[in-house]
Amino acid sequence: MNIRLTLRLLGALLIFLGGTLLVPAPFSLWFGDGALGALVLSALLSAITGAGLFFGFRSGNDLSLREGFAVVTLAWVFFSLFGALPFLLSGSIAHPVDAVFETMSGFTTTGATILTDIESLPQSILLWRALTHWLGGMGIIVLSLAILPMLGIGGMQLFKAEVPGPTADRLKPRIQDTAKLLWGVYVLLTMVETLLLMLGGMNLYEALCHAFATLATGGFSTRNASVGAFGSGYIDWVVTLFMFLAGVNFSLHYHALRGRWRDAWKNEELRCYLGITLGATLVLVLANQGRVYASLFENLRYSAFQAVSILTTTGFGTTDFEQWSPVAQLLLALLMFIGGCAGSTGGGIKVMRLLLLFRHAQVQLFRLIHPRAVRLVKFSGQPVNPEVMQSILGFFALYIGIFAIASAIMAATGLDLVSAAMSVAATLGNIGPGLGSVGPVDNYAHITAFGKLVLTLCMLLGRLEIFTVLVLVFPTFWRK
Amino acid sequence: MNIRLTLRLLGALLIFLGGTLLVPAPFSLWFGDGALGALVLSALLSAITGAGLFFGFRSGNDLSLREGFAVVTLAWVFFSLFGALPFLLSGSIAHPVDAVFETMSGFTTTGATILTDIESLPQSILLWRALTHWLGGMGIIVLSLAILPMLGIGGMQLFKAEVPGPTADRLKPRIQDTAKLLWGVYVLLTMVETLLLMLGGMNLYEALCHAFATLATGGFSTRNASVGAFGSGYIDWVVTLFMFLAGVNFSLHYHALRGRWRDAWKNEELRCYLGITLGATLVLVLANQGRVYASLFENLRYSAFQAVSILTTTGFGTTDFEQWSPVAQLLLALLMFIGGCAGSTGGGIKVMRLLLLFRHAQVQLFRLIHPRAVRLVKFSGQPVNPEVMQSILGFFALYIGIFAIASAIMAATGLDLVSAAMSVAATLGNIGPGLGSVGPVDNYAHITAFGKLVLTLCMLLGRLEIFTVLVLVFPTFWRK
Repeated sequence: MNIRLTLRLLGALLIFLGGTLLVPAPFSLWFGDGALGALVLSALLSAITGAGLFFGFRSGNDLSLREGFAVVTLAWVFFSLFGALPFLLSGSIAHPVDAVFETMSGFTTTGATILTDIESLPQSILLWRALTHWLGGMGIIVLSLAILPMLGIGGMQLFKAEVPGPTADRLKPRIQDTAKLLWGVYVLLTMVETLLLMLGGMNLYEALCHAFATLATGGFSTRNASVGAFGSGYIDWVVTLFMFLAGVNFSLHYHALRGRWRDAWKNEELRCYLGITLGATLVLVLANQGRVYASLFENLRYSAFQAVSILTTTGFGTTDFEQWSPVAQLLLALLMFIGGCAGSTGGGIKVMRLLLLFRHAQVQLFRLIHPRAVRLVKFSGQPVNPEVMQSILGFFALYIGIFAIASAIMAATGLDLVSAAMSVAATLGNIGPGLGSVGPVDNYAHITAFGKLVLTLCMLLGRLEIFTVLVLVFPTFWRK
Repeated sequence: MNIRLTLRLLGALLIFLGGTLLVPAPFSLWFGDGALGALVLSALLSAITGAGLFFGFRSGNDLSLREGFAVVTLAWVFFSLFGALPFLLSGSIAHPVDAVFETMSGFTTTGATILTDIESLPQSILLWRALTHWLGGMGIIVLSLAILPMLGIGGMQLFKAEVPGPTADRLKPRIQDTAKLLWGVYVLLTMVETLLLMLGGMNLYEALCHAFATLATGGFSTRNASVGAFGSGYIDWVVTLFMFLAGVNFSLHYHALRGRWRDAWKNEELRCYLGITLGATLVLVLANQGRVYASLFENLRYSAFQAVSILTTTGFGTTDFEQWSPVAQLLLALLMFIGGCAGSTGGGIKVMRLLLLFRHAQVQLFRLIHPRAVRLVKFSGQPVNPEVMQSILGFFALYIGIFAIASAIMAATGLDLVSAAMSVAATLGNIGPGLGSVGPVDNYAHITAFGKLVLTLCMLLGRLEIFTVLVLVFPTFWRK
């Protein structure tokens, strides 16, 4: 482990964070909300610390696998610590643990909040809150592309093996170009949603905050009643559409924007994701029709919004789905584990992993009947690298294992059964609202400080897809 | 698929079932409980149908893989249909779906009941109910040994690779000898427990019924209040001990009985199983001390009983654990997924599978740091066959997948969230009582007929370890 290089890189990232902390400053001036000092001071503290690390630790630039893991994980921790400063310094959040919870929830695009009255915060602080989502969503993609190929796991490996085009064979020699292309798509979609939301009556500030939270599949709103506060069918449908788009592999968006619709449509994960979205919406519509909603149109609006919001792990709300029937609630709980597509900003286990797990099980059944036949799991017609398959199987086992253990810990902090399990499902999957006492009209304020730290760790594990974080606590990681 | 041979073998098994249906007959005469006619008629119907199949379909004896799966799965279905006859013909259970549910629950050693007043049934019918447990527990081991080596999955494969002694290298040439040895251990342990329970004040009938249900890790009692009805610390501890023993790999019992304690103790699964048992008991004791129980001795008695009862998937009760704290309840819910050791009569995912899943995840983490290193998952110092590992990973994915989907279906039948999930966990894991409306002091009577059939299928899937059943619905299974 080259600790000096790790700290130097973290320093560079903190300087970058300092810059982003100044973005809400002009809004603070405009609104005169009194948070300007907090923002500028936070930016200075972050940048000065960063500069100290960057210039204090000189080192070669030979980034090995190990430093990659350490930098990524620690960067997320540092961002959540320094990103929490505006909340604390502006007096918006009193307790440091709460502020770190909120910031980690932002960067990991979870959207779980400890705030009981969101609307009482300065507007510029709420913009910073939405911006953490956007940076986290974007950051994960950049990090995926920049870091994951060295890690040998997850999105990038899956991209390389299975997605044709700019992210596939020609990816390695120009990884930064790829990152820029995806970044461009992300900015473009955010701009389009902002405009569409303004056409629906939102002002620029609110449109921007909600577009940030949508494209990052985050879920933080500027309103206590989330998207439901606007009471507009048009806005609901715009957000539903862009949540869905944010849950799609962004390299497919690039294909589609280049006019290669057919190539994008050939992707099996996209079809499966669309199928789950339509299927889940249908079940919710059937469960709600006549029971919760009399009008089919209204039913479709709320059911589709909630299905997409939970499946993509965004977590926006337009209604209290805990008033829905048990089957609707259980379906939403299951969607929390699925998540978006690989290479999207969504969390959860991801559609592709579940698709490949299903196929792995099919292959096992096939082998029972034909023990001597060799059959590999395939994706979009291509055989999946067995090492990728092993990694997915390990990921699934760890995901379920962490869910089980963390749920027991949360129950030990005093939560009831449903709240304990759902608080973990909602943070590990980066969704936000769960069920029980952390449901769509509740928040996480009532959880103990220890419990909040456990959930903060769950958010980090979920967002960095477990391995990247867990490898740091693996004994041989620190050995020469 | 040789349908004729399959039906012929099923015929032979039904004749055998007819014989076992006569076992409770002398007890019926002794008690004069009026169920003699029902038992004899059931035996005749089973034996005549069996004879019709056996003599009606002549065929070679060349049992292929496919017939193996079909015979095993259909045998369990047929046993549950014909085994339900005494309940129906004696008027003990009115509805056929209820009777099949109860019988499948018996044979699969689940122990979930639809009876609201167990003590109102004729004693001989309750003995038959306990006997289905014993046959199922024993049957699974015999079936494991006789069928699984051809199937290439589960217990037998694990035995062959990891357990030294009579079940390992010399197993194949004399599989029936091995089955007889294990059967002998099973009978011996049942006899010892029966005697010990009689020393505690039970009569022969009750001691036999409870010993049957304990060694099979079943959980059916002759009393409405289960084992708690006897209110005896001595009986609680005897049952706790024998539940624990029933959850151990039976080939290790054989080693121990032959004096090879060290060999048995070297088995990593046994140590892990013991560790989980002690750890779970400790957590329950800590959660209950002062809160539910004032006396440590009393606390230990109830906590150990419940931990072992749920972990081994027996499901006996001595107290209403839904009155315990959320962390205790969540722990019990997690234990439902673990289950006993491979090669035991316990259900669930099994300790060995979870141990190997954990090691697989460890290997994946190791490979992140050392991408070029080759490292296999090991068990008791020996590398695990990668194909066995693939099968375990597939099993785990299917287990969680079936749990998720069946829970949603149960919620659709009108159960609340906790009851829906726990009814599936308790039947898929062959435990019996769950939480919510299927808790330790409740029963399954209130569930819809459709819901009962879904849970009946879950019991079958859990008991035959998924693959054996699922392969029958796999399209290529039926192709030439």
